[in-house]
Amino acid sequence: MAYNTQNLVGTGCYERDGGLSGFGREIVAEMNRVGMMCDLSHVGLKTSEEVILESKKPVCYSHCLPLGLKDHPRNKSDEELKFIADHGGFIGVTMFAPFLKNGINSTIEDYVEAIEYIINIVGEDCVGIGTDFTQGHDQAFFDWLTHDKGYARELTQFGKIVNPEGIRTVGEFPNLTEALLRRGWREEKVRKVMGGNWVNILKEVWGE
Amino acid sequence: MAYNTQNLVGTGCYERDGGLSGFGREIVAEMNRVGMMCDLSHVGLKTSEEVILESKKPVCYSHCLPLGLKDHPRNKSDEELKFIADHGGFIGVTMFAPFLKNGINSTIEDYVEAIEYIINIVGEDCVGIGTDFTQGHDQAFFDWLTHDKGYARELTQFGKIVNPEGIRTVGEFPNLTEALLRRGWREEKVRKVMGGNWVNILKEVWGE
Repeated sequence: MAYNTQNLVGTGCYERDGGLSGFGREIVAEMNRVGMMCDLSHVGLKTSEEVILESKKPVCYSHCLPLGLKDHPRNKSDEELKFIADHGGFIGVTMFAPFLKNGINSTIEDYVEAIEYIINIVGEDCVGIGTDFTQGHDQAFFDWLTHDKGYARELTQFGKIVNPEGIRTVGEFPNLTEALLRRGWREEKVRKVMGGNWVNILKEVWGE
Repeated sequence: MAYNTQNLVGTGCYERDGGLSGFGREIVAEMNRVGMMCDLSHVGLKTSEEVILESKKPVCYSHCLPLGLKDHPRNKSDEELKFIADHGGFIGVTMFAPFLKNGINSTIEDYVEAIEYIINIVGEDCVGIGTDFTQGHDQAFFDWLTHDKGYARELTQFGKIVNPEGIRTVGEFPNLTEALLRRGWREEKVRKVMGGNWVNILKEVWGE
């Protein structure tokens, strides 16, 4: 609904957040009508809360990590995670290393810890994978991402960006399934988090 | 800086106002640099206050009327008028009838009353004419103006729009000079409000 900063709809997570605009409320209604999911990953706390309350269909943080493991304005607090889940929303867990507890030194185990942290708060039915993979993108791409509107002030400095060890590339995805099984998860839970939950929620939003 | 509702810079006067955005602060700095005046006529209270404080050059309400004579979200309170004047800003007084005390039945005398009301608060050196003339525009133009972004929800319903009697057209402008003189204004004051003050403030902002 907003990417890091203010737009016509609301405000992103990197500045003071005035909430959902009147135009934004019309946008939510139209997205509901056409079956488009509202994503609050990069959105501020106040706008997120108001979109969650405004939307008649489930909304999501398509890719986020818990503030409880790493204090970062892009991460979501326990209260935010609970609030979206309590209102029928969905959480995709990102593996973007700078937002993980061990930053750029994170491994696939740190990622699994984050997934488990969120499941402990919201249960296993509204959580999925939200990689935020940027494999193959160059420095110009990241320069664009880290500046407001692609060219204005710099919002973040991530330094080196690399995925957690064990899941550095899309091709290593099977390692994640193995890591979850190794953690003692039963197969049904692995299936749900690896994709089943996303399919269910998207059916609900998109229609079958 | 914003037209009635939220944009990338701030918020307009017809909805909840989250204030000046980070990008908006960059816009103010760039407008200051190139010599473009920040206009707050259609801007919300909070964004206006923050632009007034942020700008290193004088800003203006290029066309507004006092809330003290007619309660309307587009009109400015005594405190707002004083605040912009105290910070070196400027006030152009509009003759848009729906915002005048007597609405569509207003005359040129109602307009002069509004000018005098504002001068009583801020003095005679930072006030000018800000007509908001829409002479010759058709219904499609007003439909665009009264909807958010020209096509979204309707924000205002003005009904019939006609200028105050005595200054219905640009050609009747000399009537205004006469009305001010008839009110007992000395010639210097008339000259300042009829244009001299605008020339001075624009010299300051644009450079000579």
